[in-house]
Formats: sequence, C-alpha cells, structure tokens
Amino acid sequence: MSDKSPILIDLRFDRDSVLRALPEAFAGRQVIDLGDPANRERDLSEATYAVVWKPDPDLFRRANGLKAIFSGGAGVDHILSNYQLPDLPIVRFVDRSLTDRMSEWVVWQCLHHLRNGFTYAEQQRMRVWNEIAAQPEARDVTVGIMGLGVLGADAAAKLKIMGFRVIGWSRSKKEIDGVETFNAGGLDEFLGRTDILVGLLPLTDDTRGIYDRGLFSKLSRTGALGGPIFLNAGRGGSQNEGDLVGCLTDGTLKAASLDVFVNEPLGPDSPLWALPNVVVTPHAAASSEVRALFRHVEQQIERLESGEPLQFVVDRTSGY
Amino acid sequence: MSDKSPILIDLRFDRDSVLRALPEAFAGRQVIDLGDPANRERDLSEATYAVVWKPDPDLFRRANGLKAIFSGGAGVDHILSNYQLPDLPIVRFVDRSLTDRMSEWVVWQCLHHLRNGFTYAEQQRMRVWNEIAAQPEARDVTVGIMGLGVLGADAAAKLKIMGFRVIGWSRSKKEIDGVETFNAGGLDEFLGRTDILVGLLPLTDDTRGIYDRGLFSKLSRTGALGGPIFLNAGRGGSQNEGDLVGCLTDGTLKAASLDVFVNEPLGPDSPLWALPNVVVTPHAAASSEVRALFRHVEQQIERLESGEPLQFVVDRTSGY
Ligand SMILES: NC(=O)c1ccc[n+]([C@@H]2O[C@H](COP(=O)([O-])OP(=O)(O)OC[C@H]3O[C@@H](n4cnc5c(N)ncnc54)[C@H](OP(=O)(O)O)[C@@H]3O)[C@@H](O)[C@H]2O)c1
Ligand SMILES: NC(=O)c1ccc[n+]([C@@H]2O[C@H](COP(=O)([O-])OP(=O)(O)OC[C@H]3O[C@@H](n4cnc5c(N)ncnc54)[C@H](OP(=O)(O)O)[C@@H]3O)[C@@H](O)[C@H]2O)c1
Repeated sequence: MSDKSPILIDLRFDRDSVLRALPEAFAGRQVIDLGDPANRERDLSEATYAVVWKPDPDLFRRANGLKAIFSGGAGVDHILSNYQLPDLPIVRFVDRSLTDRMSEWVVWQCLHHLRNGFTYAEQQRMRVWNEIAAQPEARDVTVGIMGLGVLGADAAAKLKIMGFRVIGWSRSKKEIDGVETFNAGGLDEFLGRTDILVGLLPLTDDTRGIYDRGLFSKLSRTGALGGPIFLNAGRGGSQNEGDLVGCLTDGTLKAASLDVFVNEPLGPDSPLWALPNVVVTPHAAASSEVRALFRHVEQQIERLESGEPLQFVVDRTSGY
Repeated sequence: MSDKSPILIDLRFDRDSVLRALPEAFAGRQVIDLGDPANRERDLSEATYAVVWKPDPDLFRRANGLKAIFSGGAGVDHILSNYQLPDLPIVRFVDRSLTDRMSEWVVWQCLHHLRNGFTYAEQQRMRVWNEIAAQPEARDVTVGIMGLGVLGADAAAKLKIMGFRVIGWSRSKKEIDGVETFNAGGLDEFLGRTDILVGLLPLTDDTRGIYDRGLFSKLSRTGALGGPIFLNAGRGGSQNEGDLVGCLTDGTLKAASLDVFVNEPLGPDSPLWALPNVVVTPHAAASSEVRALFRHVEQQIERLESGEPLQFVVDRTSGY
C-alpha cells in the first residue's frame, strides 16, 4: 500500500462521486481523504501531493511536506486568492471531457439566444402559435470569446462549425484558423464587433470585475439579434452583478446566460434568478469528473517521479 | 419585362417577406403574384413556371401551361397529397441556409435535453441552486436520425462534432463518415440503439404515422439520459399525437421537442402545449428564406432553358 509517497485529497465536491472514484485511484499509494472525519486531526506532514478544491484554509500549514498541489478544477483562483501558499508548483486540471462539456454549454446557450428560446418558451406557455418573422442564422451573428485558452479555443472551433462568426480576445494574441483574434490592447475594437459575448476568463487581479457597465456599453448594438447578449462560464468574480442587473433591465444587454456568480451558491434574494431574459445554471457548465481528475493527477505524478516536467503548471505572477 | 416566359407565385408565407423579395427577383420575366388580390380572377394559362407553398387547390387547373413546379419548401407533401397534379417535374427547395438552420434547431434541442434544460429552468424558477449529480456528456449518448437526406446528413455531421454518437436510418443505406447507418430493414436494431430519436423524414404514404407507440417502445431504455427522447422536425403527419401524449405521460418517452404537428397551427386545446417535458416550436426549425428560394428557382429555370437537367426533382412514386 505505501511504497509510494502519500497523497492528500481535500475536494469539496459531491461526496459520493469522490467516494466512487477513490477505490480505483492511486494504486500502491497511501491516500489521506480529508472528507473522512477520522482524518480531521491527523498529522499531514508526511503527505507529498495534494488534490484540492476549495481546501481547508489550514491545509497548507498542516501539510508542510508537499511537493506539488493539484487543483480539482481548471481554475486556481479558489487556491490562489484565499491562502498563504507555499512556493510549490500548482497544477490545474485540463481534460478532454471538461473541455467538451464546456463547449456543450456554450453552444447550447448561443443557440438558445440565436433561436429565440425565451420567446418560444413564453409562446408555448401561452399556447400561441407564431413564427418569429426575422430569424437570423448563425452566420449573421458574431460571437466574441474573452479568453482563448483550452476552453475558449475549443468553444471557438465548435461555434464556427455551427456557423457563427467567431472572434476572440486574450492577453497574448492567438492564431486560430478562421477566428479573428485581438490582444489585450484590442479590447474596444473586439467588443464593438461582438453580438454575443462569451466569458471564459480565469479570475485574476486583472479580470476581477471586468464585465461591468462600461464594458457592456461597448458591445455592438447593430447586430442581427437586436441587442448584445452576455454569457459567463469563467468565474463570477469577473462580473459586476449590480451592473449586470441594471444593464439587463435597461436594455444595455438584451439577455444573459450565467453559470458563475460572485457568491456561490447564488443567494435566493438575487434578482438574477427572476429576470425574464436570464438563464441561470448552478456552476454546472463543466464540472470535473472525479475519475478523470484522478487519472490526470496520476499522470502528472508519474511525469514528476520519472524526471519529466509537470504540465499545466500555473504562473503565480499572472494568476492562471 | 416580358421577353421571358411568365412565372406564377403562390406562397402562403409571411406576406411581407414575399413582398420584400419579389422586386429583386426574376428580372425580365413577368411575375404573377397570386397574393395580390388583383390577380384573383386572372387567366393563368400563359404561365410557364409556378413557385408554390400550400397553393390554391384550383391552381393547377387554371395554370394549365406549366412546364415545372417549384416547391417553396424542402418538403413536397403540401402539393402531392392535396392536388390532382399534372405530370410535370416538381422541384423541391434545397438551400445551404435552410440546411444550416435545421441543424441549429436539432443541435440546440439535443443539447437542451442532454444538459437538463427543463430541470435547470425549473430550479431557476424556484431559486434552487443544485447541480445535477449525473451529467452525461454527448459521447455517452446516441442520437439516431431517421432520414439521412440533405438535412439529416448535415445534422449528423454537426452532432458528431458536438461529441454525440450518431447513427442513422434511411430507405437506402448511406455511407457517412463516423456514422453507423441502417437501411429500411434495420429499423428495430436502429431504434434499440437510439437514446435521442431525431425525425427528419419527408411525409409520404410510407412515413405517415410512423412515430407511434410501437416505434417509441423499441427505443433504448438503458441509455445515460434515463429514457428515450423524441425530436421531430420533419412532418407532423408522421407522428401519432395520441400515442405521443400517452408515451410522454406514462414514461415510454422521457421528453420531446416538436416543431411539426398533424394540424398546424397546433390547436390551443392540444395537450402537447402544456406537457412539462415537451418543447413546442411553431414549424420554425428551418423556414425558407424567400430571397434564397427565388435565387434557387432562377438557377433551376436557367438550367432548364439552357438544356441542362433540373436538380432536386421529386420522385412522384416514392413521394419525396
Ligand atoms: N463554469 C465552469 O464549470 C468552469 C469549468 C472549468 C473552468 N472554468 C473557468 O474557465 C477558465 C478558463 O479555463 P481554461 O482552461 O480555458 O484556462 P486557460 O487555458 O488558462 O486560458 C485562459 C485564457 O484567458 C486569457 N486571459 C487570462 N487573463 C487575461 C487578461 N488579463 N486579459 C486577457 N486575457 C486573459 C488567457 O490569455 P493567454 O492565452 O494570453 O494566456 C487565456 O487565453 C478557468 O480559469 C475557470 O475559471 C469554469
Ligand atoms: N420543420 C421545418 O422547418 C422543415 C424545414 C425543411 C424541411 N422539413 C422536412 O424535412 C424533410 C427532409 O428534408 P431533406 O431535404 O433532408 O429531404 P431528402 O433529402 O429528400 O431526404 C429524405 C430522407 O428520408 C429518407 N426516407 C424517405 N422515405 C423513407 C422511408 N419510407 N423509409 C426510410 N427512409 C426514408 C430518405 O431515404 P433515401 O436516402 O434512401 O432516399 C432520405 O434519406 C422534408 O421532406 C420536410 O418535410 C422540415
């Protein structure tokens, strides 16, 4: 059981999915599952690796022998912004399944807005048979993606195949086939060309609160959909929710689909739940599949222990 | 104006879109627009071509000099099933835009069901934050398409790119990359493998009422979605709506998305409007863009008049 160095698990995920995945994972390695109350007071100094999602604030003080930290999700703001962290490599979760699911959500929501999902649902409720006269098709609409990383690039490719015009924005300019791209300095031009804005940015000091009234006001107002639409599946901390409610009410935004929120779970008093032009999903666009996460961690540990460099290591300066 | 032979227009479409498209179409040709009351009693025997959608029952008796009939839509059941027709070529409407829009609708609705659209909308209404624990991804789900023509083949390709497993059924077996196909005799095997059934068949004597309890009962019940789902965007006449309501109520079907109905507009008394597991859209999946329709008709007339064979001619025996 313990010829390999021990691994800590502190995942605030659905408990059952962790329990189902653990027995198959980390063969020959001691696993310390902090979800098990028996481990609450345990000495953690012998642990070499940690797989964490929103871990115990005290964890990194107690587990002072770590060589690498693995994030349970694609984002690492849940670790970087909340803890005094030792100077260790932090590896984020990159996975085909996670990427595919995110693109499912993005394409689903873009099609919902393109194809008048709200209006047709309301007409169905009222038993009204009425074809909306002006039905633009995907190629009449420009989707602008903020964040062209693993997730943004895959969403871009799939939106293109569905016919949308796609443009993208990232810190450093990217080359993506058939997608016009802009770098940090090109933000205003990018926004002015965007009909549906898709947020797939990590949460960092630079992106906190970036989606605000100032930004929404710069989106194209002349597009085929009759007003700009905002999707966010990156992080809620990037959106100013006061501005968002205001813009969705006064017409600065026509509609939105939100998977992430400043505070999660979204409080029952948030006006976002009840706006007729908003889709709310509960941070479910692309949840980590725990089995896939453990396989990814095993692969990275194998690399490390055979002297290869770790992949997907976070740049602590840029914060992602 | 009249060096070319006259063309009749009898399109029961949104009148404005016909009026907007007409001035740009059929240059140098006399156009007889039957939507204009002034033409109601007019002698039509001089007309050579007709572009029709659900035309006046009397039309083909009055217009007895026609050389070709152009359907205003992809389907021709609206002509073949209702009229005593002269023995003339009937050309159906095939168009990139029509095809793309149909695939938008199909992918949109498949993603809606895959990604628990009904449950999340209901949770939003109740202000409940709850991530559904089992979220299969597209590759866990098999979409079976009935009808692998122009529309079915394009939907298949796009569903594949979104990750779905795709299988298909048609009268004659087709070869489509990455799609397992079945011919008429393979129907039961096809159904037994299908989690989401997509109907893209034309309405003919062979397909009338084909979607009934017997067929729904043969769909896979062991798939990742917890029960079979039915989408129909072909023709309503292919579905038995009594069976459909029964199956959606007793669990034989988990859910449905319906764009077409036996009687359109769908009557306000139909129970389909109010079933909580049904999406109704008003025959809007892929409406004909009138400008594109007229361009297609012009191209076909040009072929005919320069001695080339017409394309997309309907086989009167098979009915599509
Ligand atoms: N809702 C969910 O279920 C869910 C699931 C998974 C992930 N997420 C979120 O999605 C985010 C993106 O994931 P990913 O895997 O695509 O990340 P990634 O590969 O690290 O890509 C991040 C992208 O954002 C760009 N970016 C970062 N900071 C920027 C700035 N200040 N200005 C302009 N562009 C900036 C990066 O630019 P460069 O290319 O120039 O570096 C890069 O293109 C994650 O961080 C996570 O927060 C959400
Ligand atoms: N809801 C909307 O807005 C909308 C818009 C446009 C069209 N439509 C409907 O969609 C239908 C399909 O359009 P399309 O352009 O794809 O037509 P298509 O190219 O003619 O294809 C028809 C397909 O159905 C198959 N088929 C026909 N009868 C069959 C039978 N008895 N058994 C098995 N397969 C059979 C054909 O098989 P083979 O390949 O062996 O011939 C072919 O694969 C149209 O007829 C129309 O009714 C609806």
